[in-house]
Amino acid sequence: MDLQAIVDEALDYADHYRGHGALASYIPALAKVDPNKLAIALVTGDGESYAAGDADELFSVQSISKVFTLSLALNQVSAGLWNHVGREPSGSPFNSIVQLEAEKGKPRNPLINAGAIVVCDQLIGSRDADAALDEILAFLRQRCGDRDIGIDMDVALSESRAGNLNRSLAYFVNAFGNLSNPVEEVLSVYFRQCAVAMSCRQLARAALYLAYDGVDPLTGEAVVTPSRARRINALMLTCGHYDNSGDFAFRIGLPGKSGVGGGVLAIVPGTGVMVVWSPGLNAAGTSLAGAVALERLVELTGWSIFV
Amino acid sequence: MDLQAIVDEALDYADHYRGHGALASYIPALAKVDPNKLAIALVTGDGESYAAGDADELFSVQSISKVFTLSLALNQVSAGLWNHVGREPSGSPFNSIVQLEAEKGKPRNPLINAGAIVVCDQLIGSRDADAALDEILAFLRQRCGDRDIGIDMDVALSESRAGNLNRSLAYFVNAFGNLSNPVEEVLSVYFRQCAVAMSCRQLARAALYLAYDGVDPLTGEAVVTPSRARRINALMLTCGHYDNSGDFAFRIGLPGKSGVGGGVLAIVPGTGVMVVWSPGLNAAGTSLAGAVALERLVELTGWSIFV
Amino acid sequence: MDLQAIVDEALDYADHYRGHGALASYIPALAKVDPNKLAIALVTGDGESYAAGDADELFSVQSISKVFTLSLALNQVSAGLWNHVGREPSGSPFNSIVQLEAEKGKPRNPLINAGAIVVCDQLIGSRDADAALDEILAFLRQRCGDRDIGIDMDVALSESRAGNLNRSLAYFVNAFGNLSNPVEEVLSVYFRQCAVAMSCRQLARAALYLAYDGVDPLTGEAVVTPSRARRINALMLTCGHYDNSGDFAFRIGLPGKSGVGGGVLAIVPGTGVMVVWSPGLNAAGTSLAGAVALERLVELTGWSIFV
Amino acid sequence: MDLQAIVDEALDYADHYRGHGALASYIPALAKVDPNKLAIALVTGDGESYAAGDADELFSVQSISKVFTLSLALNQVSAGLWNHVGREPSGSPFNSIVQLEAEKGKPRNPLINAGAIVVCDQLIGSRDADAALDEILAFLRQRCGDRDIGIDMDVALSESRAGNLNRSLAYFVNAFGNLSNPVEEVLSVYFRQCAVAMSCRQLARAALYLAYDGVDPLTGEAVVTPSRARRINALMLTCGHYDNSGDFAFRIGLPGKSGVGGGVLAIVPGTGVMVVWSPGLNAAGTSLAGAVALERLVELTGWSIFV
Repeated sequence: MDLQAIVDEALDYADHYRGHGALASYIPALAKVDPNKLAIALVTGDGESYAAGDADELFSVQSISKVFTLSLALNQVSAGLWNHVGREPSGSPFNSIVQLEAEKGKPRNPLINAGAIVVCDQLIGSRDADAALDEILAFLRQRCGDRDIGIDMDVALSESRAGNLNRSLAYFVNAFGNLSNPVEEVLSVYFRQCAVAMSCRQLARAALYLAYDGVDPLTGEAVVTPSRARRINALMLTCGHYDNSGDFAFRIGLPGKSGVGGGVLAIVPGTGVMVVWSPGLNAAGTSLAGAVALERLVELTGWSIFV
Repeated sequence: MDLQAIVDEALDYADHYRGHGALASYIPALAKVDPNKLAIALVTGDGESYAAGDADELFSVQSISKVFTLSLALNQVSAGLWNHVGREPSGSPFNSIVQLEAEKGKPRNPLINAGAIVVCDQLIGSRDADAALDEILAFLRQRCGDRDIGIDMDVALSESRAGNLNRSLAYFVNAFGNLSNPVEEVLSVYFRQCAVAMSCRQLARAALYLAYDGVDPLTGEAVVTPSRARRINALMLTCGHYDNSGDFAFRIGLPGKSGVGGGVLAIVPGTGVMVVWSPGLNAAGTSLAGAVALERLVELTGWSIFV
Repeated sequence: MDLQAIVDEALDYADHYRGHGALASYIPALAKVDPNKLAIALVTGDGESYAAGDADELFSVQSISKVFTLSLALNQVSAGLWNHVGREPSGSPFNSIVQLEAEKGKPRNPLINAGAIVVCDQLIGSRDADAALDEILAFLRQRCGDRDIGIDMDVALSESRAGNLNRSLAYFVNAFGNLSNPVEEVLSVYFRQCAVAMSCRQLARAALYLAYDGVDPLTGEAVVTPSRARRINALMLTCGHYDNSGDFAFRIGLPGKSGVGGGVLAIVPGTGVMVVWSPGLNAAGTSLAGAVALERLVELTGWSIFV
Repeated sequence: MDLQAIVDEALDYADHYRGHGALASYIPALAKVDPNKLAIALVTGDGESYAAGDADELFSVQSISKVFTLSLALNQVSAGLWNHVGREPSGSPFNSIVQLEAEKGKPRNPLINAGAIVVCDQLIGSRDADAALDEILAFLRQRCGDRDIGIDMDVALSESRAGNLNRSLAYFVNAFGNLSNPVEEVLSVYFRQCAVAMSCRQLARAALYLAYDGVDPLTGEAVVTPSRARRINALMLTCGHYDNSGDFAFRIGLPGKSGVGGGVLAIVPGTGVMVVWSPGLNAAGTSLAGAVALERLVELTGWSIFV
């Protein structure tokens, strides 16, 4: 397959949807992003990368960061993590609080906001917030071999200012004894991890270990155990897009994670990682043009975990 | 891999759980089944089959039938089906009515009871119930090359007598105009398809097309389009085990479907189909010893769609 | 107070809202009623009655019948009734099924549909449906001294045909073992009691015992015990108007019950009973012009149980 | 009626339940209260008071304060208050967050926690928290003619420390733009109003205006308009005891408000106010022995708004 030609064709195809959808207006700093951005990057296990559009431009990774933090937290607290957070799809929007009440403060899975807040708390452990955040950044930099990866503090601040719903979720979880660190300490990790700025190409490179059973194919480093890599992929497939996860699995057929910054990550086990970016979102908070591009990529490559 | 040895070892391993769990007591005819039954069958694309335990004994397929009926309904009404039923995990038990109210009578997905009732209605179309049921039976017989596959009418009757909750779901869906045939007509298909009696080996054989992009690898027949086969697999992965789907994907890592008769189907794309059977169920209505056997099979073979 | 003048003034006042609101279109026979009807009747404990508008025209009492059936069922099965139905406001629409699932088939209160269905079942007891219905009719005829009170069979039939949601509720309740008679038997009482045709004046006369601690002030007959009369009033106040009950208590301040036929009953303890009728309904299923008339009546008389 | 004899007899009757139920353990300072306390006070419109047990001992009024704050807020912002909070029973526990999501941050009524938080915010208005609290204290002192009424700061502090769930509710409401002051500012009023310490006799005296159409019968002062007094009573009847409100109306038949400090207020329109106190709570958070005492008082006096 001529992967570059395929990436180009997918970008062309998605170009009709450039600018469609709505920016994530509830975070003012995200609402300022140019809605016409559109990018695709594909990195394969041999280290090749294929890109189109604004694939080296930094954007706010938002919830895509949940996948990396989950990897680190699993390495740190192991299966004990599952005492604090479940692994079932929620059937609800990303910020819903309804199930938390019925399920006594244990979030459904680590990829919805409440669950990711609990994962941040576990990653902090007995350290302080900054130490946990440093670990996240060091991890991303090492995966990409790029020391410049950092946080967009304007976005982090905007996120915290607009963070009433996430604060509500965190206090709710805390009311059931499911946080071991103070709410604001935990949220300071959560908001800043969401505000990490990376490009499509960097994100695809960083997630490569998830396509290779936990081993970074370029460095040979065992990032997570094979079992954890598979399970993180399983969680992405069932829970990676909130109440749109089923439809994503149905249409794209690959484990993935979307962020309200407009990025979407998709893992192709044994082959590589694709990342698309376009800031306009559909009703479920997934990049509209990005999902179109991914669907086209899948059509052209025939990649799917279901065949 | 010595698949027969693996199947034997998985049966040995699960043997400790033989008889554990609870029979589906709300259907009296199912409560009479011998709780100590335990079986595994694996059928591969070359037509070989590997079996252990009571793998040729007939049992009630129950909800596993939903996968076949969905295949037939998609062939019949095509994408129009998705106007009547969604494709998101429900996050709720198999018989929950709660979401139906918020979502105005459109069931979350075709693998929960309400959704399967709607699929039956669509399969009936403008025919009568018996014609639809004949089609289901003819399909299963043809897939297995076995003309004796039939319905356990004791179970079907027991199911109907104990069917208040399913009646409630059907009338609820109907109240929103989402059934085109009378409730009892639709339920007569639904209850009878659940009461189809098949063995592990037959079920694995019948589902082989789902492991081969819709083509039966033994006959070459295109049963469903490649895209539909992938999408049925995606639905099984995200929704095949009700509010236990996420955990199943996490632990087993294969598209699957469980039935309260104690059978569990698992698709290994490109390789074959595994079916386990043991009547004792866990809290989510999945075979307890069966899930243990499947988990062991996956451990021993390394099969997973996430690597 | 010149009660006739007050009744006339309230009718004048509500006249501006004549024809506003929507007919109960989901029951075709009710959708044919003249939307411009408007009536008030007030019957006091000395037997005087004050009326304005179409106060002697028959209309479909619908859910107002629930109050009388509840009175009869309490006399028959006594406090045992509360094992089958609760007495809390539901905070939900009249036909909601959501709480039934969480509360395992025990309806919140006897004045929502599911609860009234359970009350009908209890009233039937070991008799048949017709015997229970005969008792309801005999009761209403005796209270009014009018042997002609009967059922509008067109409405009853229309109600049954459009009764999918109520069927769903009944099967749901039955699935939890909370019905002792067959669903259609119970519904045949439920649908027919809703289709009883009475005038405002008749309804006000019939309910007089609820304003006098259970004793019919005109005949001296003890219809229900004082404690039951108070408790039926309490239930009307907290639950008589579904998810509009709080607002009704807030604005009108009297125990009451509305029906989707456009009638509203209001009890004035120690004084009498008011009934208004106008077929156009507000969003919560209460007569729009009727509620306006009642609010004006309360303003002009100063009647309220809260002072 | 010999009211003193009745009060004594009710105390004797409830004495069997002294110490039953559970202290409000989630607020540590409340968990230290002597569980054997039991008290009744009845104050009538002529200024007489009848008491038994520890009727002059101070206790934490907790949610009973919501009634007074609501009175003040209605005087201050008038009907505009209802843009921020509803007036329907919630059918849910006092601290539930579920409905807030469906109803976009507008609490069901002012007597559940989320609603009372919104009422505090409205009472603060453009002032600061201390000014609002001073107004509440001045109001209570003036009603009782007792300048010593104050806040138990140990309880207030304990309440704030244990206040994660209330913080979650406040941030949730705030996320929908339904608070005009900072969350901690609003909560500082909320927690301190709950920690006001009063005796049964003081509380009964303070609430006397609600039994007399808004006019304090001893001073002649118009505290709230007649219409507001009636409406506050209506709200207490339909919503004063959370998901136990229907049962309270059914058994007691008087507008009332319970607090987790073990106090229960009951208004007898045109006659006076009863307050009972005993710290052990039933499952719904209402004083167990207190409710028994109230039920006996109602039995002996025949007082009810429903006759």
